[in-house]
Amino acid sequence: MKDQFYSYIKNLQNQITQALEKVDGSATFREDVWNRTEGGGGCSRIIENGAVIEKGGVNISSVHGPLAKSMQDYFKVKNVDFFACGLSLVIHPKNPMAPTVHGNWRYFEMYDASGKCIDQWFGGGLDLTPFYLFEEDAQHFHLQCKKACDAHGLMFYPEFKKQCDTYFHNAHRDEARGIGGLFFDYLKADKDYSIHDRYNFTKEVGIAFLDAYIPILEKRKSMEFTDENRAWQEIRRGRYVEFNLIHDKGTLFGLNTNGRIESILMSLPPKVQWRYDHHPEKGSEESKLITVLKNPKAWV
Amino acid sequence: MKDQFYSYIKNLQNQITQALEKVDGSATFREDVWNRTEGGGGCSRIIENGAVIEKGGVNISSVHGPLAKSMQDYFKVKNVDFFACGLSLVIHPKNPMAPTVHGNWRYFEMYDASGKCIDQWFGGGLDLTPFYLFEEDAQHFHLQCKKACDAHGLMFYPEFKKQCDTYFHNAHRDEARGIGGLFFDYLKADKDYSIHDRYNFTKEVGIAFLDAYIPILEKRKSMEFTDENRAWQEIRRGRYVEFNLIHDKGTLFGLNTNGRIESILMSLPPKVQWRYDHHPEKGSEESKLITVLKNPKAWV
Repeated sequence: MKDQFYSYIKNLQNQITQALEKVDGSATFREDVWNRTEGGGGCSRIIENGAVIEKGGVNISSVHGPLAKSMQDYFKVKNVDFFACGLSLVIHPKNPMAPTVHGNWRYFEMYDASGKCIDQWFGGGLDLTPFYLFEEDAQHFHLQCKKACDAHGLMFYPEFKKQCDTYFHNAHRDEARGIGGLFFDYLKADKDYSIHDRYNFTKEVGIAFLDAYIPILEKRKSMEFTDENRAWQEIRRGRYVEFNLIHDKGTLFGLNTNGRIESILMSLPPKVQWRYDHHPEKGSEESKLITVLKNPKAWV
Repeated sequence: MKDQFYSYIKNLQNQITQALEKVDGSATFREDVWNRTEGGGGCSRIIENGAVIEKGGVNISSVHGPLAKSMQDYFKVKNVDFFACGLSLVIHPKNPMAPTVHGNWRYFEMYDASGKCIDQWFGGGLDLTPFYLFEEDAQHFHLQCKKACDAHGLMFYPEFKKQCDTYFHNAHRDEARGIGGLFFDYLKADKDYSIHDRYNFTKEVGIAFLDAYIPILEKRKSMEFTDENRAWQEIRRGRYVEFNLIHDKGTLFGLNTNGRIESILMSLPPKVQWRYDHHPEKGSEESKLITVLKNPKAWV
């Protein structure tokens, strides 16, 4: 399963970076391969200052070794080794009409002192963060998420859509980071699904990223925008930073366990603004977005 | 003591905002008065888009009521009411040659169920975050800090300078946020110092801000700079955001206890950049700053 999933994410990294380079038409990803002292490593692919993509990363990693003390406490286990591999991506387009997107698909194993695998699960999802709300984009994105889910079980989409709204929530602002998508974790084998079923599901959600996001980016990448639109995008990116640094468990876990800082913080947007007590005008396009972020919608 | 300290910070807010407006010469502070449902409130003074100050806040607040559950746990007390008042300031100048500055002076009381004061202490400090290192500025700032301390006890400056270097440390980057200053907390009455001695000390450190920072801002506000200097400032401001949102106890405490979000996050810089794996060239002015942030210096 480890090798199977790792070869899947390696292949997915190629597919996604190729598709994004094609949409950008100008910049290409540069590769940054790194090793982890305690075991394993990763391959980050970074794009900056493209014609379409202002900053983005599509990173894979495969790490293993003794489980950090803080994580042993978290999982209530002792003397445990782990293996984790996954793909993480964040794309920040230049055009404020094009949404930022995040995706992550990962696989985790734990072993006892004898090396026996004692637990294994999948996690991940994808979610969209627009700066201007195009309802058709939100519907398209969620429809692709639903399609990937429905092939494996009709309860998956509603459940993981809800978990996404719950997780990507800027509690201190009482608003969502974006318009959601899917979020799932600890997908283990149970009486209804084998670990291979979980693998097939995670695989399908990962591949769905391409159909969910690329057409939206194509559609929005060349739209006209004003300096005010751009300023609004930078202010909203500030909320993205707030979520990632204050609330995101993955980011905080990485920072607290000696993870690779640059690969973790590649998620941060290239240019960001904070203004004091900024609120959009009533009835404006900007305020329409806020309404949806305050009250997550059923998009499909 | 409550009234005495509050009247001191009200007066200090006036002195500091007047002095900063004079240096700016163009923008003025606007006042934002707010009330806290559970008791008390505050008065934020905000300046944005000045000739010299790009964004800044000089805020006072005085809040009281039942101590939040999380804080009761932190202090290992039960059924306790509290009173807290203080002044917090952060100034982000436009010119990258001028350093960002932070200051905070606060007083805290706790009461048992009968209303008796069971604990009281002062805390605070001031620290400087340059983007380009002018050794004379760092020396000047620390000399003013030392002068304020030495009047009350010769061990204060070395102790609180060290605490400042320890506290304002971006652990995940293994570098200091800036070139330090003073940081102290839980300054209580003891066998050597009465609570009035602690008050007089905190007062002196607060007033020292003016002599410590204003001359530096005056000196640097009109220096020439390039687009590259400005980009470097925005990248370094990213580290400021990282510290405040990941490590700063005051910020996280405020966000987790239903504090006033805009007053807490006024500390965030106006324009910020994140680039992937950015490092200054060896031997450059930018790399000189990093050397000092990696190895805090004895400035006086």
